[in-house]
Amino acid sequence: MSDFIISMHIFYFIIMITGSIYFYVLSRKPKQVPLYEYAIAMVIPAWSGAAYLSIALGQGLVSNPDKTIYFARYIDWVVTTPLLLVALALTAMLQEKNKNKTLLFALIISDVFMILTGLIADFSNDSIKYIWYILGMIALVIILVIIWYPLRKIADAASPELSRHYKRIALYLSCFWILYPTAWLAGSSGIDITHQSIEIAAFIILPIFSKIGFSILDLHGLRNMHL
Amino acid sequence: MSDFIISMHIFYFIIMITGSIYFYVLSRKPKQVPLYEYAIAMVIPAWSGAAYLSIALGQGLVSNPDKTIYFARYIDWVVTTPLLLVALALTAMLQEKNKNKTLLFALIISDVFMILTGLIADFSNDSIKYIWYILGMIALVIILVIIWYPLRKIADAASPELSRHYKRIALYLSCFWILYPTAWLAGSSGIDITHQSIEIAAFIILPIFSKIGFSILDLHGLRNMHL
Amino acid sequence: MSDFIISMHIFYFIIMITGSIYFYVLSRKPKQVPLYEYAIAMVIPAWSGAAYLSIALGQGLVSNPDKTIYFARYIDWVVTTPLLLVALALTAMLQEKNKNKTLLFALIISDVFMILTGLIADFSNDSIKYIWYILGMIALVIILVIIWYPLRKIADAASPELSRHYKRIALYLSCFWILYPTAWLAGSSGIDITHQSIEIAAFIILPIFSKIGFSILDLHGLRNMHL
Ligand SMILES: CC1=C(/C=C/C(C)=C/C=C/C(C)=C/C=O)C(C)(C)CCC1
Ligand SMILES: CC1=C(/C=C/C(C)=C/C=C/C(C)=C/C=O)C(C)(C)CCC1
Ligand SMILES: CC1=C(/C=C/C(C)=C/C=C/C(C)=C/C=O)C(C)(C)CCC1
Repeated sequence: MSDFIISMHIFYFIIMITGSIYFYVLSRKPKQVPLYEYAIAMVIPAWSGAAYLSIALGQGLVSNPDKTIYFARYIDWVVTTPLLLVALALTAMLQEKNKNKTLLFALIISDVFMILTGLIADFSNDSIKYIWYILGMIALVIILVIIWYPLRKIADAASPELSRHYKRIALYLSCFWILYPTAWLAGSSGIDITHQSIEIAAFIILPIFSKIGFSILDLHGLRNMHL
Repeated sequence: MSDFIISMHIFYFIIMITGSIYFYVLSRKPKQVPLYEYAIAMVIPAWSGAAYLSIALGQGLVSNPDKTIYFARYIDWVVTTPLLLVALALTAMLQEKNKNKTLLFALIISDVFMILTGLIADFSNDSIKYIWYILGMIALVIILVIIWYPLRKIADAASPELSRHYKRIALYLSCFWILYPTAWLAGSSGIDITHQSIEIAAFIILPIFSKIGFSILDLHGLRNMHL
Repeated sequence: MSDFIISMHIFYFIIMITGSIYFYVLSRKPKQVPLYEYAIAMVIPAWSGAAYLSIALGQGLVSNPDKTIYFARYIDWVVTTPLLLVALALTAMLQEKNKNKTLLFALIISDVFMILTGLIADFSNDSIKYIWYILGMIALVIILVIIWYPLRKIADAASPELSRHYKRIALYLSCFWILYPTAWLAGSSGIDITHQSIEIAAFIILPIFSKIGFSILDLHGLRNMHL
């Protein structure tokens, strides 16, 4: 493995641990924002950082002669993407006393399904790779529908302020999440038209925005709402 | 893998996706039945269909010279059987405001234990296969006891109508669930006295009844109750 | 595998099944202690017993020429240690109507993280083994902080009696949990300065105390409280 790959992943690890500590510091003055929002924001980068560390240490990947599979990315995603969706959903339901568990369940199971199809696709030959990819895309569409219909309605019903905040972070999340299957498809997992270092960089930069960036946006938006 | 096996599994995949869509359509006019009942009924066949698709694609099995292990069945069951039990239990507790989480926890953990013992048994030699099988059977007995004692008492206390409905679907589920370890034992995982195509057919037909059939029975029963 | 190892693990299996049955018997006369406390106490030894049985049967370990990895221990721990923490936390929150789910979530995720780092460390070379070990130790410190600060405050606020009981079982748990990474480090997973039979004995005796012993202490303490 090249030094570039190793140092990028160590850099990522440091960013993530810093982010986790930052959210911990924020949680000391919660400003009425429920503590679970902070807890989720702390756990996401800690878990992801450890997963990427395993890549830096040469363990979270399998190098075949023709392609490298970074399976630690899926170990990262299978935990952090459900948590991101839960954070988003709990923001929408901030003022509900009884959180809608059916929506949380539907989000989590669709998301886990999506990540697993990606993992299988990555380990599949070209002939069947795209069957799994398409199933994963269907799951992503279901997730986006849940985000933009039932969840948005709940946020809309709460207050104009929460509704505005929810729409902003939901849009942010949706944009980044659509970039993932795109980068995946263009990279070595898919049709492989990207230079390797571009692909590595993409999977370093994207998660910084969709994890740390997302949580900063969400938490500061909520903190400024003077709940 | 024979064409028979492939086409049977693709047939199953199509049935399951159709079932999932059908429950979605039902959910548009929920008739007072809580949405989680529909959500669970949609997720079960979608997950199972994908698992069986992996068998059709030649990925969800390992072919040893002397025996084939369809490990994707366990990936199916480990998610869908807890959900079937949760659907049953939530039907029993339909009118409880606070669902009894201890019973849900006991059902889920016993069920996951049962499926894992089956998986280990399938990968074990004859000398120790039946130790795991017996442990799995004990877990199944515990599940049946929970279904027929504490859960039935809850349904009985709710209303005569719910009690009748609960007993009907619990009996349906119990009968089918007892057939699984029987088919397993008779088939290539166990003592292997069944012709291979009978075994394949059994594990196509049984889950259609115990997934789609069960959810149809449960949902229509609840819908006709005029809750 | 030596007869000593096999018979120790079968002995353990029998102790655990006996413990599970004992907690079931206790639960028939619950004395106002919530049933979930009994359910958790029953599940922990049943799961752990099955995991150790797999070692006795020669399946739950990999024997390399230079070292043996008992991976079934991690399968045991990944389920039982979160349950032990949940039992402890639910004791602290006994009188809360709405259990604090943020604390339960933080405990469970930190614990699963700790066990996974241990598993990875056990499969790693010396050069990187201790990186994972240290990450696991950090998770253990986070767990201990949650036990001794937020959870203790909740127990203190409930009643002097509950506070006393909570502190006793939290101290008991903390002492035993600190012995695990110590035994791990001294044994073949770590720097390997222990005789093999001492190590085996340690991982038989420690869990008897930290599972059966802990649950006995917790349940009898609660039962004597005349809730
Ligand atoms: C749809 C789809 C995918 C989507 C992945 C996504 C949406 C990942 C999001 C990751 C995040 C947000 C990580 C953390 O920041 C895969 C698995 C690539 C391939 C299969 C099809
Ligand atoms: C007791 C037992 C088993 C039971 C399996 C069951 C009860 C499966 C049910 C599956 C369903 C209902 C699937 C979906 O429809 C095994 C694992 C075969 C073998 C070990 C002993
Ligand atoms: C901190 C740490 C560990 C801690 C393990 C513990 C605390 C295990 C507790 C087990 C119990 C209580 C079992 C059941 O009774 C490992 C994984 C050994 C190694 C990595 C660092």
